[in-house]
Amino acid sequence: MMLMGLTFNFYFGKQVETLKCALSLAALARIWKSEGVTEDNRLSTTLDEVIVYPIPALLYLVKNLLQYYIFAYVDAPGYQILKNLNIISTGVLYRIILKKKLSDIQWAAFILLCAGCTTAQLNSRSDHVLQTSLPGWIMAIVMALLSGFAGVYTEAIIKKRPSRNINVQNFWLYIFGMAFNAIAILIQDFDAVMNKGFFHGYSIITTLMILNHALSGIAVSMVMKFADNIVKVYSTSVAMLLTAVVSVLLFGFNLTLAFFLGATVVSVSVYLHSAGKLQR
Amino acid sequence: MMLMGLTFNFYFGKQVETLKCALSLAALARIWKSEGVTEDNRLSTTLDEVIVYPIPALLYLVKNLLQYYIFAYVDAPGYQILKNLNIISTGVLYRIILKKKLSDIQWAAFILLCAGCTTAQLNSRSDHVLQTSLPGWIMAIVMALLSGFAGVYTEAIIKKRPSRNINVQNFWLYIFGMAFNAIAILIQDFDAVMNKGFFHGYSIITTLMILNHALSGIAVSMVMKFADNIVKVYSTSVAMLLTAVVSVLLFGFNLTLAFFLGATVVSVSVYLHSAGKLQR
Repeated sequence: MMLMGLTFNFYFGKQVETLKCALSLAALARIWKSEGVTEDNRLSTTLDEVIVYPIPALLYLVKNLLQYYIFAYVDAPGYQILKNLNIISTGVLYRIILKKKLSDIQWAAFILLCAGCTTAQLNSRSDHVLQTSLPGWIMAIVMALLSGFAGVYTEAIIKKRPSRNINVQNFWLYIFGMAFNAIAILIQDFDAVMNKGFFHGYSIITTLMILNHALSGIAVSMVMKFADNIVKVYSTSVAMLLTAVVSVLLFGFNLTLAFFLGATVVSVSVYLHSAGKLQR
Repeated sequence: MMLMGLTFNFYFGKQVETLKCALSLAALARIWKSEGVTEDNRLSTTLDEVIVYPIPALLYLVKNLLQYYIFAYVDAPGYQILKNLNIISTGVLYRIILKKKLSDIQWAAFILLCAGCTTAQLNSRSDHVLQTSLPGWIMAIVMALLSGFAGVYTEAIIKKRPSRNINVQNFWLYIFGMAFNAIAILIQDFDAVMNKGFFHGYSIITTLMILNHALSGIAVSMVMKFADNIVKVYSTSVAMLLTAVVSVLLFGFNLTLAFFLGATVVSVSVYLHSAGKLQR
């Protein structure tokens, strides 16, 4: 399942942007029909507005290319564990770049969120990650910073023009995502695409996964527009826990003691995040 | 090591009270010599003062007797994990019996302390504890309540007379501990003592362990007198983590990822406990 997810990210993941672009256009078409084209929902843009949009796409591209190389140093379960560094990097970059303050209690909650998610994912092979070599750690930290930076930067772009329609903003985000992913396909999957065709390997499952990734990508953009990266990190973490619970109900997986402990720590973290809100 | 500790608790543990009693008397003798016998440090007592002292000893006796039966339902590593329920029971009974308030943040910290300690102790066999049957859970909860109640009750007794010398208070606590442990030896170890003698099995290691238990028992009494059960629970937890770190340095044990995660959660809990102090 985990390896299936990774293969998906490496190849089909690159094709998700196209669907997101199409879905944003479809949403816009409906809005134009009902409200007409306005200053805020027109697709045309200025260089000043659009010039920052390639940056997150570029950051994600570099991060995805790095993903190929980190597996020389870390195995797949170890990578899942190291991905939780994203939580810390997002918090730190959110503070630095967006200049929004978190209270001391909220920082404590953030550390707990990272520890709790990692605890919930512990399994018999997790300890391998402690043997990660220095280059592996550096790559993991660089990837966490890239992905945190991309998230925070996207929020900055989207929030810069609060009245601009989110579907237009998404369209411009995804169009550059498409372009950069096309480059990644040329670099990484050129032979496969040439030999087997672009749609080789598509099945109902992959189609559903692409749809799922596209919809959750759009949901993340909405969270950036109407909430922030902190909410995104918390909702991703709670989603991870809920997915595990649903897997138990659907597939009869067993929950581990580590999962219950991690879920407890994450729940306390959610509580502390709101209890620790700065008085304004 | 763990089984050695359990055997120790079952037999030699009962002989610790005698040493604690002797040490308290020795401390008193020194005080009488330097300060003379006063109202606060005299050993003689009234029925009104002494009548509550057998209660904690009785609670511990019942708890220790239960320890024999719980192993029908839980294995030794599972028991170590379930012992962390003490943390929650101590917090709840501290609130109810001593009527001292903890802030919401401090309650959150207490839940984290329990989850963090348990996480730090996770090993490949920990998941067995989830298969514990209902009677096993009930016994574990009853034992946690007994031990939490004994701790909180001891604090109430010791704090009731703030000016009374702690060594006198310890003497009366331990003399009843001695008496009840003598009963436990009669019930549980009568044959062994008759066949092999009271001091059978003594070695340098067991002698050092008895000394260690006696000194740490006296230290706990001091914490009850000059601090409280919450400080006791936190110091016991931090001591558990430090013991693991020392084991690494002395015996070359490997620390697990779960240990680091648990230690992180416990550290955040310690911070939150002081950050969450109620304004008075």
